[in-house]
Amino acid sequence: MDIEARRKADPAHWKLASAIRVLAMDAVQAANSGHPGMPMGMADVATVLFQKHLKFDASAPNWFDRDRFILSAGHGSMLLYALLHLTGYEQMTMEQIRNFRQLHSITAGHPEYGHAEGIETTTGPLGQGIATSVGFAVAEEAMRAEFGADLCDHRTWVIAGDGCLMEGISQEAIGLAGRQQLGRLIVLWDNNNITIDGRVTISDKTDQLARFAASGWRVLECDGHDAADIDRALTEAQQEDGRPVLVSCKTIIGFGAPNKADSHKVHGSPLGAEEIEAARVAIGWEHGPFIIPDDIAGDWRAIGARGAEARAGWNARVDALAADARNEFARRINGDVNPHLAPTITALKDQAVAAKPKIATRKASENTLEVLNPVMPENFGGSADLTGSNNTFTKDLGIFSPEDRKGRYLNYGIREHGMAAAMNGLWLHGGFRPYGGTFMTFTDYARGAMRLSALMGLPVVYVMTHDSIGLGEDGPTHQPVEHLAISRATPNTLVLRPCDQVETAEAWEIALSQMSRPTVMALSRQNLPELRVENSAENLSAKGAYVLRAASGGKPAVVLMATGSEVEIAVAAREVLEAEGTPTSVVSVPSMELFREQDAAYRSDVLPAGTVRIAIEAAVRQPWDWLLLGERGREEKSDFVGMTGFGASAPAPELYEEFGITADAVVEKAKALL
Amino acid sequence: MDIEARRKADPAHWKLASAIRVLAMDAVQAANSGHPGMPMGMADVATVLFQKHLKFDASAPNWFDRDRFILSAGHGSMLLYALLHLTGYEQMTMEQIRNFRQLHSITAGHPEYGHAEGIETTTGPLGQGIATSVGFAVAEEAMRAEFGADLCDHRTWVIAGDGCLMEGISQEAIGLAGRQQLGRLIVLWDNNNITIDGRVTISDKTDQLARFAASGWRVLECDGHDAADIDRALTEAQQEDGRPVLVSCKTIIGFGAPNKADSHKVHGSPLGAEEIEAARVAIGWEHGPFIIPDDIAGDWRAIGARGAEARAGWNARVDALAADARNEFARRINGDVNPHLAPTITALKDQAVAAKPKIATRKASENTLEVLNPVMPENFGGSADLTGSNNTFTKDLGIFSPEDRKGRYLNYGIREHGMAAAMNGLWLHGGFRPYGGTFMTFTDYARGAMRLSALMGLPVVYVMTHDSIGLGEDGPTHQPVEHLAISRATPNTLVLRPCDQVETAEAWEIALSQMSRPTVMALSRQNLPELRVENSAENLSAKGAYVLRAASGGKPAVVLMATGSEVEIAVAAREVLEAEGTPTSVVSVPSMELFREQDAAYRSDVLPAGTVRIAIEAAVRQPWDWLLLGERGREEKSDFVGMTGFGASAPAPELYEEFGITADAVVEKAKALL
Repeated sequence: MDIEARRKADPAHWKLASAIRVLAMDAVQAANSGHPGMPMGMADVATVLFQKHLKFDASAPNWFDRDRFILSAGHGSMLLYALLHLTGYEQMTMEQIRNFRQLHSITAGHPEYGHAEGIETTTGPLGQGIATSVGFAVAEEAMRAEFGADLCDHRTWVIAGDGCLMEGISQEAIGLAGRQQLGRLIVLWDNNNITIDGRVTISDKTDQLARFAASGWRVLECDGHDAADIDRALTEAQQEDGRPVLVSCKTIIGFGAPNKADSHKVHGSPLGAEEIEAARVAIGWEHGPFIIPDDIAGDWRAIGARGAEARAGWNARVDALAADARNEFARRINGDVNPHLAPTITALKDQAVAAKPKIATRKASENTLEVLNPVMPENFGGSADLTGSNNTFTKDLGIFSPEDRKGRYLNYGIREHGMAAAMNGLWLHGGFRPYGGTFMTFTDYARGAMRLSALMGLPVVYVMTHDSIGLGEDGPTHQPVEHLAISRATPNTLVLRPCDQVETAEAWEIALSQMSRPTVMALSRQNLPELRVENSAENLSAKGAYVLRAASGGKPAVVLMATGSEVEIAVAAREVLEAEGTPTSVVSVPSMELFREQDAAYRSDVLPAGTVRIAIEAAVRQPWDWLLLGERGREEKSDFVGMTGFGASAPAPELYEEFGITADAVVEKAKALL
Repeated sequence: MDIEARRKADPAHWKLASAIRVLAMDAVQAANSGHPGMPMGMADVATVLFQKHLKFDASAPNWFDRDRFILSAGHGSMLLYALLHLTGYEQMTMEQIRNFRQLHSITAGHPEYGHAEGIETTTGPLGQGIATSVGFAVAEEAMRAEFGADLCDHRTWVIAGDGCLMEGISQEAIGLAGRQQLGRLIVLWDNNNITIDGRVTISDKTDQLARFAASGWRVLECDGHDAADIDRALTEAQQEDGRPVLVSCKTIIGFGAPNKADSHKVHGSPLGAEEIEAARVAIGWEHGPFIIPDDIAGDWRAIGARGAEARAGWNARVDALAADARNEFARRINGDVNPHLAPTITALKDQAVAAKPKIATRKASENTLEVLNPVMPENFGGSADLTGSNNTFTKDLGIFSPEDRKGRYLNYGIREHGMAAAMNGLWLHGGFRPYGGTFMTFTDYARGAMRLSALMGLPVVYVMTHDSIGLGEDGPTHQPVEHLAISRATPNTLVLRPCDQVETAEAWEIALSQMSRPTVMALSRQNLPELRVENSAENLSAKGAYVLRAASGGKPAVVLMATGSEVEIAVAAREVLEAEGTPTSVVSVPSMELFREQDAAYRSDVLPAGTVRIAIEAAVRQPWDWLLLGERGREEKSDFVGMTGFGASAPAPELYEEFGITADAVVEKAKALL
């Protein structure tokens, strides 16, 4: 590593990049925790990117037409924080840099969306950034197609490390981006050959350039410490030819640390006072920690202001729009709830109450989307190769493709994780409300990105069909049992399991009204009767749980709680119990999260004390203990009818019998407790 | 599609393959559910494989030295069932074929491990088979290195579809296998260009041959309907050169169905009576459903007996071993519990009680492995690139690599999902007890394979360190909150969260004694005091929960339940409460699953009725409602100290304060309830 030669080759560049390097090593040292190696290694590439290529204006971090910069290798967060600070993002003060990784600072260990402007998405779990960026790039193409290049005309830049590229999700992203010819997606690979356990080669010998090329990417290379070569490669990367671009940036991890660079020792620990001192000498940095001399600070601020003119031009073009167009554009990029949503749902509910269809809730969901999608241009659908099963496509959408960027339906392929991450990116970019379908059991495959939806508070919608043993013959690998519990256990996640057409319509109204949490919608494969036979203008599902059938006389001796496909069973059991003289209510529980938010008086009305309580759900009991034993429930007066293990392969009705999820079983348990 | 020409080209082969095709289409039709397209498309390849290449003996399905055949494209289950039936696997009767996808049959919709001999692993969730096969191939190499080619000398064959190759997990498998030069792993790609939603090209245009080659695979091609060409390719595939092999088998999905072949219509639905009739004519099959004429049946039976001689030779070599060697070999391939386990743990506990180390449980785990691994040659460790953090490596293991096949530690790379699937394969192959480490939050990445560990009942061990906000500065993306709930909600999964060195040693004893379920071991990053200060020969953790500190006077007014790193907090809170005159017990709950298995009397001793109960765990409450509100608990007398949302980035002690998980908070809540 010839630091000296690099210093002399381009002194102006060297100073700019050095500011990043020292901030990174000093902040990590102060925190006594963090990852100095990546920011130091990629400082040159990032400097050239921000100085000469990235379209942004530090004074307006949320300018819609900015290029997006995504740090997929999120452990290198100090790279991003240093860039935001140096270019003049107001929130990213030196005080925040000093408080790197400290409580209540905006400079978390990994970049957290919402903590500071300029953080486009939460990264850290490796591979998420590159996969999310695909959604950004799709949204850019789609918005450009819809609103024109005057309003939307930017790129998505990603820095990804070896770890990102080893995670399986990266392949899903690469395949999807290659197929969709996302020519404005540019991935800068921090090719430093180091992972936590040692050289990359101890676990991988993939030729990444060949791998990306195999999926239709353009691949470039540069010396990641040579500003001119970086500039050349980034310039070339922007010469669009319809292929996404990988730039292999050959770097040395921890570049500038004379003794620890190019080793895994510099990856995830502070350099230590001694090595930092040595690095200062090697780099030629004469200033103390957290001190940036005025000339360098000034140069960086000028970089931060580079985009002002472009932004002014964009503002003028937006201002020149007719008021209606301007307002709708603003609504779209703000993600505001569509005013057509509520009346469309109300009309659909009226029809459903009249028609009483006996259909699967996945079909009810399709019916709902059929009326919503034409009036909600922000809806952007898709499925992980289960379109006909998830019922996620509607006639008006069109298929998004290189040939039709106005299509609003994406064939994600057999890529649940990639789909979920792309949905996050679609929302984060602005302009669309994404929903995507798969079988509910494949929550398992998508979990990494679903958790980030919740952590970031993104109102994307997971359309999870085939939500129980009701799936039938495909058997236990395809039958979710624990997945309702999984999503309910996840903070800031709304789980909705509607029981019929009316509740499904209400569920969509709830999901598409969210602004800060994802929805997991659990839908049946099998047909279900319409149970909401009386019209209600109010969205009853929004209460989370409500009395669907009151006990005769008003005071129940037995309360049967159920969700989705098991509400039908509860209603049947109630008939028997009522016929035998036992006042029984049925409480439909489309969402435990929403019920938890209701006031005590309402909850007590729905679940009065002193009754027998039975919950019915074709899934594990874990989330039900709260409603069975808590909320005035009692252990000796409650029981559960559901699953205790995995499912089996057989026709669905036989499985319900086999696992004892029947009205008879409910009646029997109720009687035993009375 | 020229069926006629194919028929005439090789009539003998045609008959054999036709038997598979008609069984598949007839069984799917009878079930009115299933996937005929893949078995019909791959019938020729499978026929050549079984007839000429696969080493197996249908009369001894569990012969250790057989080649393993893994149907990664598990929806094509009828291909496997047809092969097992035709070659004469005793359990796979025609009656079972007739009962395809019916309750209690062994012919489930997707192949379920344990349902029938010859099903090497459960497949269905796409990509799992190919990823699991890497573990099979690693185990074969390692067993061969240890016991010699006389006892272990076989291949792993996989049939994978386009869906398997699109799933991200496949890239993890490909990268790992390529790096490890698993030259006896041969993947036959059913290259039919069809997915459920249409042509593969609607979602992917990856050049799969180039992609595999980029990761160090040898790639071959064949016409998947030309027996001679298939034979050539499979022969070539076995000419080992240290690279795993991909054979692209160009096929037509549903080959033989004259009108529906080569379309997604034949993928996942019965062909219908009319098309089946047309297929019979096209194929030239004159027999009714489920009738195989004697000549064809006889030819297939002869194929099933091909391996008898090889097996006899192997038996003779095993019999020739010295008794000790033979017994140990038998113990290893049976997976029997190691007799050294219990005494080694007892000795370690003695030492820990004496030394009272204040260490993280991840370190306690390392200490345990340091003494176990030398006496348990079946232990096979690894980590997804977090070796130094997971503390999974011990000095004696050696690194598994092409240069050292006796190494018992695998650098899995940044591939949590691939690691989990490979661990399943390592166990399924026989010979090893795999354990593998990652951060607990990356349960999300590994879930697909972790669920299969549970569904198949494989006693692999997930070493999940950094199990709470105690992880500290890396922040919420890296801090598990819902993951204990996730694993506890998963059927047949043992979750162990030990609190100190003694409990960690006990946890390993429990985990390595399992025969039919996986263990998720949750371990702390941060140091914890030794709390089990009195020696106990008994494995108290095996009770699931036990009184760690009794209330003074024997009868508690307050019971504090906690796990892992929060037991320390419970003990501190107890000190305060006891000092104030409140008899308080501390119940350590290393495993809810094991506690649930105890009898009522024991459970009642540990959790007596009528006390205040508080549970303390730095995670969501969901799994605790059972122990707080049930088991004689009462809503108005119980409370929870834990997490209600995601974590944050800060030093761990500050996070415990910030989220109110402190002894003070426990004391306060206890007093409020008394």
